[in-house]
Amino acid sequence: MPHIKVNEDLPGIRSLMAFSPETAAPMGELANLLLRTNEGLTMAERELIATYVSHLNDCFYCRYSHGAIVTCYLNDDNELVDEVIKDLAQAPVSDKLKALLIIAGSVQKGGRYVTSDQVEAAKQAGASDKEIHDTVLIAAAFCMFNRYVDGLASKTPTDLSSYPLRARQIAEKGYGNHIFTNKQPVADEQQA
Amino acid sequence: MPHIKVNEDLPGIRSLMAFSPETAAPMGELANLLLRTNEGLTMAERELIATYVSHLNDCFYCRYSHGAIVTCYLNDDNELVDEVIKDLAQAPVSDKLKALLIIAGSVQKGGRYVTSDQVEAAKQAGASDKEIHDTVLIAAAFCMFNRYVDGLASKTPTDLSSYPLRARQIAEKGYGNHIFTNKQPVADEQQA
Repeated sequence: MPHIKVNEDLPGIRSLMAFSPETAAPMGELANLLLRTNEGLTMAERELIATYVSHLNDCFYCRYSHGAIVTCYLNDDNELVDEVIKDLAQAPVSDKLKALLIIAGSVQKGGRYVTSDQVEAAKQAGASDKEIHDTVLIAAAFCMFNRYVDGLASKTPTDLSSYPLRARQIAEKGYGNHIFTNKQPVADEQQA
Repeated sequence: MPHIKVNEDLPGIRSLMAFSPETAAPMGELANLLLRTNEGLTMAERELIATYVSHLNDCFYCRYSHGAIVTCYLNDDNELVDEVIKDLAQAPVSDKLKALLIIAGSVQKGGRYVTSDQVEAAKQAGASDKEIHDTVLIAAAFCMFNRYVDGLASKTPTDLSSYPLRARQIAEKGYGNHIFTNKQPVADEQQA
């Protein structure tokens, strides 16, 4: 049960954003800027970083929400997300993305865990300053989003079949006010 | 040395916000919404939560930047900040704020560390749903800001005499674009 009185028809962060639409606006804008561009990192790579950090933070809602978006972008039945989470070293991603995911994993522990060697490895693998910046900020932002969702014990759909529909909507429209004002997806999620 | 090429004339998060002004805009807006209102929690209480979490995250820059703002609001020579950090249980703050700081400390560890008992204690001490919400989101947001600052190894002024001037400016003007575009404070900080 959520720690505060929110609309329980809305899952996860959406119930909190409806509770506090003022703060939801810049949070949605930040998510769009970080996750909805292919400049440097692709949208799938950005969502993979978000999913990996959410997994490390043990945030079920964000891990499955964003994992489903990666799967939607790549059309690959969750395999890449599962492989990265199971064994990053052996996962079929580029050396650059692997190095960036290692940095993201350090950010999840705390900013000071990122080492110059980790950054140098990412640069050697071809990562630009912007890609390193975006990796750190995506990882840091999900340390916020994950804590917001679980720190208020927002309702988390445990039926995994409800996540792909929502993922397709985000993949098509991005993040923004519709994620907590559009009623249709909620009804769909409740049926799922 | 910062992990990426930023303007080293700017300290801490300001160098990163200048590197990435697009993402700086919603982050500044979020900071304003969370820290620059007296609705429910006062601005000093909000900054104290931010400072406490920054201390727990071992983020020197944010701990001293926001600690100086608390001091500025309360005009108290750092004593309250130091007492809260030294021994929260004995610190001279209200039972409500103490309960909220305990929740903030749990959020710093991870969202799932917040317990129903902690939330109930805060409610018993008079905290509203909005105050609990704002506490969790301030704590979560500083888990992002702290990681952004240290994850990119941004330059941190270690001379504590440079923080009060900046604090006064934030106290007067709030957070926003001027925090990385106004050149005057930078020069002042460099002299300090």
